[in-house]
Amino acid sequence: MQFQPLLEEIVATLQPELGAAGQVASYIPALARVPAPQFGIALRTRDGQEAHAGDSTTRFSLQSISKLFALTLGMREVGEALWDRIGREPSGNPFNSLVQLETEQGIPRNPFINAGALAVTDRLVSRFDAKAEMLSLLSTLCGDPVDFDEEVAASEASTGFRNAALANFMKSFGRIDNDVGTVLDVYFHHCAVRMSCLQLARAAGFLCRDGVHPYTGQQLLTGRQARRVNALMLTCGTYDAAGEFAFRVGLPCKSGVGGGIVAVVPDRLTLCVWSPALEPTGNSLLGMKALELFTAKTGLSVF
Amino acid sequence: MQFQPLLEEIVATLQPELGAAGQVASYIPALARVPAPQFGIALRTRDGQEAHAGDSTTRFSLQSISKLFALTLGMREVGEALWDRIGREPSGNPFNSLVQLETEQGIPRNPFINAGALAVTDRLVSRFDAKAEMLSLLSTLCGDPVDFDEEVAASEASTGFRNAALANFMKSFGRIDNDVGTVLDVYFHHCAVRMSCLQLARAAGFLCRDGVHPYTGQQLLTGRQARRVNALMLTCGTYDAAGEFAFRVGLPCKSGVGGGIVAVVPDRLTLCVWSPALEPTGNSLLGMKALELFTAKTGLSVF
Amino acid sequence: MQFQPLLEEIVATLQPELGAAGQVASYIPALARVPAPQFGIALRTRDGQEAHAGDSTTRFSLQSISKLFALTLGMREVGEALWDRIGREPSGNPFNSLVQLETEQGIPRNPFINAGALAVTDRLVSRFDAKAEMLSLLSTLCGDPVDFDEEVAASEASTGFRNAALANFMKSFGRIDNDVGTVLDVYFHHCAVRMSCLQLARAAGFLCRDGVHPYTGQQLLTGRQARRVNALMLTCGTYDAAGEFAFRVGLPCKSGVGGGIVAVVPDRLTLCVWSPALEPTGNSLLGMKALELFTAKTGLSVF
Amino acid sequence: MQFQPLLEEIVATLQPELGAAGQVASYIPALARVPAPQFGIALRTRDGQEAHAGDSTTRFSLQSISKLFALTLGMREVGEALWDRIGREPSGNPFNSLVQLETEQGIPRNPFINAGALAVTDRLVSRFDAKAEMLSLLSTLCGDPVDFDEEVAASEASTGFRNAALANFMKSFGRIDNDVGTVLDVYFHHCAVRMSCLQLARAAGFLCRDGVHPYTGQQLLTGRQARRVNALMLTCGTYDAAGEFAFRVGLPCKSGVGGGIVAVVPDRLTLCVWSPALEPTGNSLLGMKALELFTAKTGLSVF
Repeated sequence: MQFQPLLEEIVATLQPELGAAGQVASYIPALARVPAPQFGIALRTRDGQEAHAGDSTTRFSLQSISKLFALTLGMREVGEALWDRIGREPSGNPFNSLVQLETEQGIPRNPFINAGALAVTDRLVSRFDAKAEMLSLLSTLCGDPVDFDEEVAASEASTGFRNAALANFMKSFGRIDNDVGTVLDVYFHHCAVRMSCLQLARAAGFLCRDGVHPYTGQQLLTGRQARRVNALMLTCGTYDAAGEFAFRVGLPCKSGVGGGIVAVVPDRLTLCVWSPALEPTGNSLLGMKALELFTAKTGLSVF
Repeated sequence: MQFQPLLEEIVATLQPELGAAGQVASYIPALARVPAPQFGIALRTRDGQEAHAGDSTTRFSLQSISKLFALTLGMREVGEALWDRIGREPSGNPFNSLVQLETEQGIPRNPFINAGALAVTDRLVSRFDAKAEMLSLLSTLCGDPVDFDEEVAASEASTGFRNAALANFMKSFGRIDNDVGTVLDVYFHHCAVRMSCLQLARAAGFLCRDGVHPYTGQQLLTGRQARRVNALMLTCGTYDAAGEFAFRVGLPCKSGVGGGIVAVVPDRLTLCVWSPALEPTGNSLLGMKALELFTAKTGLSVF
Repeated sequence: MQFQPLLEEIVATLQPELGAAGQVASYIPALARVPAPQFGIALRTRDGQEAHAGDSTTRFSLQSISKLFALTLGMREVGEALWDRIGREPSGNPFNSLVQLETEQGIPRNPFINAGALAVTDRLVSRFDAKAEMLSLLSTLCGDPVDFDEEVAASEASTGFRNAALANFMKSFGRIDNDVGTVLDVYFHHCAVRMSCLQLARAAGFLCRDGVHPYTGQQLLTGRQARRVNALMLTCGTYDAAGEFAFRVGLPCKSGVGGGIVAVVPDRLTLCVWSPALEPTGNSLLGMKALELFTAKTGLSVF
Repeated sequence: MQFQPLLEEIVATLQPELGAAGQVASYIPALARVPAPQFGIALRTRDGQEAHAGDSTTRFSLQSISKLFALTLGMREVGEALWDRIGREPSGNPFNSLVQLETEQGIPRNPFINAGALAVTDRLVSRFDAKAEMLSLLSTLCGDPVDFDEEVAASEASTGFRNAALANFMKSFGRIDNDVGTVLDVYFHHCAVRMSCLQLARAAGFLCRDGVHPYTGQQLLTGRQARRVNALMLTCGTYDAAGEFAFRVGLPCKSGVGGGIVAVVPDRLTLCVWSPALEPTGNSLLGMKALELFTAKTGLSVF
């Protein structure tokens, strides 16, 4: 399949809609000032073919996309025991995050809601320097140096009272081992990683390659683990729109409020789209449209 | 791929576990007296190849599997307007069914929870004799006459207070058009359809054939609609274990407390397993194990 | 204390506000067409002194005030065992009624929320003709014949889907013994009793007389039971405004969406106010103001 | 009425039950090691008569009883504006505290649940040195120097993750003005005040004297405010047992997990009981029995 012309066609199709609808995340200044009329798309196939178009090399804030890589580190380091404190079921809706923590004794529904990512982060903090390890993982995966946007991390910390509530609440159930402040600091830094579509399409490559590192050939996750990550992305990866994504896009996806979405076509390719203006669900408006166009034109849905 | 030996191997593997664990549904006598040590499996490929083993021609009570066919009728008859009163997102957990109906104004989360199936049934009742239409659809799909187990339907009705609560609650929000008693009667009959694994593997065939009836070639659903049904099965089809099914099985599935599970390998085949003893989540214990074995041995997971 | 001039003063004070604010209950036609600009007030002291002013002899629909007398019948007939299936705690808010029934296994929070009154009614239905018994109790208490407004009862039945949901839901937990339809019919009739302020001030008299019937001297409830009814009225008697009533009025009260409110000054007197226009909480707007004026002018708050 | 013999009789009646049932609060060591077999009772009438018996001069940890005095400071300093961020309704049950904060935008139900007391504390922190002010208030009210148990305060801080969750959660809704750590530190200190039954019976005296300081004659609260505090105590003062207290005791009460309960007989007297072993609701087991005996023997219930 010729992907470069297809990605260019998608960019052209969406061009008239750039900046026309949706809202850029506004809860911290560093995100609020990102210009809305931007769109990028990039993919990398299992065998290393690449294509990208639009603002595909502009770096943006990973935000919740970092949960995908934190989970990868957690599965690699902790193995099955990771699931002692984290579920694998969709959470239903945002309203539930606290209710469910209450009724389910501080065990978050899955690793892609904030509470779940905080629980993963806590496990990482117990093992190593989890900030450095995240940068190291991402750098080797995409082949470029990767860093934190320290302004974003600081802003997240100064406004992240809800995450502080979640972490303290889990700690009250004995589900967080480390100091809450330390866990939050690492979590906010992970959210503040900045990468481009192209870098992310490369970095997620192991998810369509049975867990094998695209460059080094190292077994990052087992094949079974990689497929499970894909399953979690499909059922839980896009906030409260997982059903809608499965219905309309039909691919495992992980989105972030920075406007990025990483998608996986199992055994075939990984894909990243980015556009800062969001739908009310917190997912990139044009990103979602781009993924629908992509699966409609290629037939590459898992369903 | 040679499926007949594979299915026989699965039957042999599970033989020692027959009746050893799990609980047969006990809330009505007609289900409670089904002997636990039974297991059947059947599949039918897109191009009509069939294989089956174990108790694959024993009929059992569809229960929630009927929601799959009610949804099919609903999508065919009502089209997009079906979604005015039914969502497409996972429901989180059973506890939520009533909370969510309350906070979401009587609109159920998806068509595979009881409230959602009642809402679908109401739309069907507005259009035709929904009991006869269900039997007619299933008969033509599997090529055999299909009927209701009237004892089961009567038992469901005499103990179905929770479903009566759900239907009345939705009616209080103006989300049910017809008489609550009529809607419940149809719903309980749909749950009381009895079919075998082989019949169900055939009947679901349109889901791996772009919506095309396997025998008549009739377009039952559009290709896009059929894929959407698969997406809903994967995210919402197995009660509160949808994440676990995606994680362990990796196929769109719809289960029932009668012990059956229908699964779809998109574009490839449909599959039905049955064993009456259930996990605490309400899904067939050996049925789930059989599906895991099937995907492990064939690699036929969507992830 | 001279009560007649005081009640006339309250009528005069509220005169300019008659019909100016609030909303008459509109969910059934028979209530919706009650003219808003009406106000009545009546009281009867422990020793039989009476005073009344305004529309104090106009009959109105008791609605939830009937729960007070259903509870009285329940305590008299069932005794302590009544509390096996009904709690005595405030319910928090309306949202909780279903959540709490779910988490608390079908046991309603208290006898003054709908679910609780349905549970009381079920116990009455097990013992006698609960419609006739209610009319008989109220007639002897107020000294006048009392009847049901059959139009109101029929309207309640034809729109009472939420109550049907509650009753079916409790039945699903095994907390309702009788046929749901029968229980609902009795409940809707109890709500449809019509009486005047003066009749209700008399009828509630036993609550300020240690449970003794004001005319016959019969011990309707024990003194301890009567005080407990007062306690329940104060903590749970005014929908979700119990705290606000305690804060502003400081008397045990039971209100109904017909616009009536019965209040008790323990050991001193019983009082009934009525005005059809309601606050958003479902309590009579002028009724509440009248009670505030009354306690401010007399100092007769329990606090 | 002769109170001294009555209190002695209550002490004698409860003597056989000392330490026999209930559980001392165990979440921090300093509370866990308080010997269970202790009981004290003290009262002070409106006109200054005092009586006390048992361990009435042993100091214990105020815990939630401090919320009563924090509220008093809040009403005195902030006036009506205090209620902008705090409700006045019962909370239903503990499960709701977080749900309600979520659905009600970070506004706690009342000032006697933890979230509400944290909101009051935040308002105090904005105005003065709220630790010093609390000690000053209590010292002048009871006539003795009062201090914090610093060990208790430190233990509360090191285990108070749930309170940290509540404070952060309210802060995320913009309902806390000050630094969360500062607010928590003050709150934990307030909980760690230690006083005896006799000191508390004196300190609460303004609640039966129209808000007038029992010794200085200063108007601490208006009469109306004092009655409102009593109303809040009755509807919300005893955790999730407010209905049960109203039903069985019939007096405004505020309890703490240190085992103390302060009660008010409006216009007559204030009363404090203490015994460390708790009921499952978190209220002192013998304290509650003592209050029941007191109201049964004196008839001094508000109902």
